[in-house]
Amino acid sequence: MKFIDDLKYNEDGLIPAVAQQFDTHEVLMMAWMNKASIEETLETGRVCYWSRSRQAFWRKGESSGQVQMLKEFRVDCDADTLLMLVDQTGPACHTGRRSCFYQVVKDGELITDSEPLIDPEELYKK
Amino acid sequence: MKFIDDLKYNEDGLIPAVAQQFDTHEVLMMAWMNKASIEETLETGRVCYWSRSRQAFWRKGESSGQVQMLKEFRVDCDADTLLMLVDQTGPACHTGRRSCFYQVVKDGELITDSEPLIDPEELYKK
Repeated sequence: MKFIDDLKYNEDGLIPAVAQQFDTHEVLMMAWMNKASIEETLETGRVCYWSRSRQAFWRKGESSGQVQMLKEFRVDCDADTLLMLVDQTGPACHTGRRSCFYQVVKDGELITDSEPLIDPEELYKK
Repeated sequence: MKFIDDLKYNEDGLIPAVAQQFDTHEVLMMAWMNKASIEETLETGRVCYWSRSRQAFWRKGESSGQVQMLKEFRVDCDADTLLMLVDQTGPACHTGRRSCFYQVVKDGELITDSEPLIDPEELYKK
């Protein structure tokens, strides 16, 4: 798919990707993709990021079972950011919460305003 | 506000910020902020990004009049991405479209699926 070559990647060959639940429109997370992870995501219909910390493919849900199925793949005006409409099974966040954006500023301080759906210990046990 | 110092900025002192319309939940754009633009945004209630191309504050709507008023300021689990719930006047995109994410993959190609609300020539005329 030619457009994949035309996207603007950073100096590490990565592009930021926002994941939004397709029906509720909740923003779940932001992570990074490279060309190969974009190709895999579009081919398989299951979201695969690039893990900057592990320097490896990050097939969402591979260890937790909480997969992200792709519904729609969007590109912004500058071709330097992606928006994926997804169907997220259970929590998107490694803390067990539905969304990674569970901290909100109230009176100048960060407050946690959602609880884990699943204990993270449970999420990553083998 | 102490939490601003604790956010994780990249090597240029920047952090990605996603803007979402607070009532419709449409994802409007992604841009970058630095400490000073975050402080200004939280103090004034009007969103101010950092323009990487101009290396200057980017007070959203300063030239177009299409301002973004802050409703909610969220931080993700890793403290390296921001999600702002905003009230966007008119188009968020410099092309005159409501959202910057107006291109969608269909049959392996990028298709434009929304039209400008305002002619961009009109948007930036003095």
